[in-house]
Amino acid sequence: MKTLIIVSHPTVEESGSQQFLIQSLPDDGEITLHVLEQTYPEGEIDLEKEQALLREHDRILFQFPFYWYSSPPLLKKWQDDVLTDHFAFGYRGTKLHGKEFGLVLIIGLPEKEYQTGGEEGFSISELTKPYQAMAKKTGMTYLKPLTIFQFPYLTEPEKKALLIAYQQYISLPQPISLKRKEDWVLDQLAKTSKETLPTEGAAFVLEAAAEAIEDNRMELDELRLHIDNYDV
Amino acid sequence: MKTLIIVSHPTVEESGSQQFLIQSLPDDGEITLHVLEQTYPEGEIDLEKEQALLREHDRILFQFPFYWYSSPPLLKKWQDDVLTDHFAFGYRGTKLHGKEFGLVLIIGLPEKEYQTGGEEGFSISELTKPYQAMAKKTGMTYLKPLTIFQFPYLTEPEKKALLIAYQQYISLPQPISLKRKEDWVLDQLAKTSKETLPTEGAAFVLEAAAEAIEDNRMELDELRLHIDNYDV
Repeated sequence: MKTLIIVSHPTVEESGSQQFLIQSLPDDGEITLHVLEQTYPEGEIDLEKEQALLREHDRILFQFPFYWYSSPPLLKKWQDDVLTDHFAFGYRGTKLHGKEFGLVLIIGLPEKEYQTGGEEGFSISELTKPYQAMAKKTGMTYLKPLTIFQFPYLTEPEKKALLIAYQQYISLPQPISLKRKEDWVLDQLAKTSKETLPTEGAAFVLEAAAEAIEDNRMELDELRLHIDNYDV
Repeated sequence: MKTLIIVSHPTVEESGSQQFLIQSLPDDGEITLHVLEQTYPEGEIDLEKEQALLREHDRILFQFPFYWYSSPPLLKKWQDDVLTDHFAFGYRGTKLHGKEFGLVLIIGLPEKEYQTGGEEGFSISELTKPYQAMAKKTGMTYLKPLTIFQFPYLTEPEKKALLIAYQQYISLPQPISLKRKEDWVLDQLAKTSKETLPTEGAAFVLEAAAEAIEDNRMELDELRLHIDNYDV
């Protein structure tokens, strides 16, 4: 599965959150990073190039700071210029049908403000309706957004958890289940080169983690078997 | 009451609907028309000038084609640049408090497609949540939007009705009641110069229309009196 990450940010080099995410991306040929403001500093968008990029990928992500509950202007221009009639919708406009669409949103206020009575007063599900409507019109499956609230205040463990969630968001098949997350972690552990670990103890911890995940999975599968056989 | 109409359209001179609305605006000093793409062809926005404009007006309208369920990019840039912390929100950010905010939306598909099961699948109320949230955050009263569906297919009578609705939307105090609409029409009729009318018959029709409205109003007031006195 190939993923296209379309980033829009007026000053992406100075954004701690964007740099944190971008630098974590694996160089495995499955992921294309596309920063609009870097590709098009003059703001003129290459329609042919953009539509070719869309055709080549299965999952399309918009990654941006959620200023005024929407994207920066260049991403809106990209939508208006690239998602044309006969390509993205309308007669024979089926080029995006069946692809997946997701949002990676960087948000300044805490999650609890995004509800009735909160400071922002509306939920992320409400505020992202225009993107849901775009996915519907272009025949794409709308994924649950990855929302990153108050990045500068994240603790180190929270940042690590975010990196894992981000890697899974860009590469795991949907829907993301516990089983798929486990498989992903086991795969990452197997890929980890023993030589680069600082101590022999670290290698032991990794092995123990993999065993613990496998043990858990066996126990869960056994429980499910019991439930399935339970005569109501 | 002073109204600021902020228009955003990538090619406003070629837009039949925008020209139709713009040319109908009265030159009475109460209304300021502000076309962003004409004022800022290079896309660089003058923050001081824009914030001064906002301070001077009581009702702020965004008027634009509803491409991909949002504004053209320059209006989004205007939001990001002009609605700053300490001005529009945050500490001492009360400069817009108490003003009114409204949307004039030019929409390509018919109204019935904007509902669950329709081609667009979402209502205008759902799709405009980001603007509702902006009004909330900046302390402005959100007006019911003026939505113009499929302008090129409007009949002449529908276009005339639209002009009246538009004039009322930009100048009448909220909420727009039947009584206020009547007063507005009577006021317009009184202002109409008899000398410019094509025939004497036309002047008679205007007088008759004014009388009919006044008669209706008296009858309505009488009915209301009966209802108020009705002993439940």
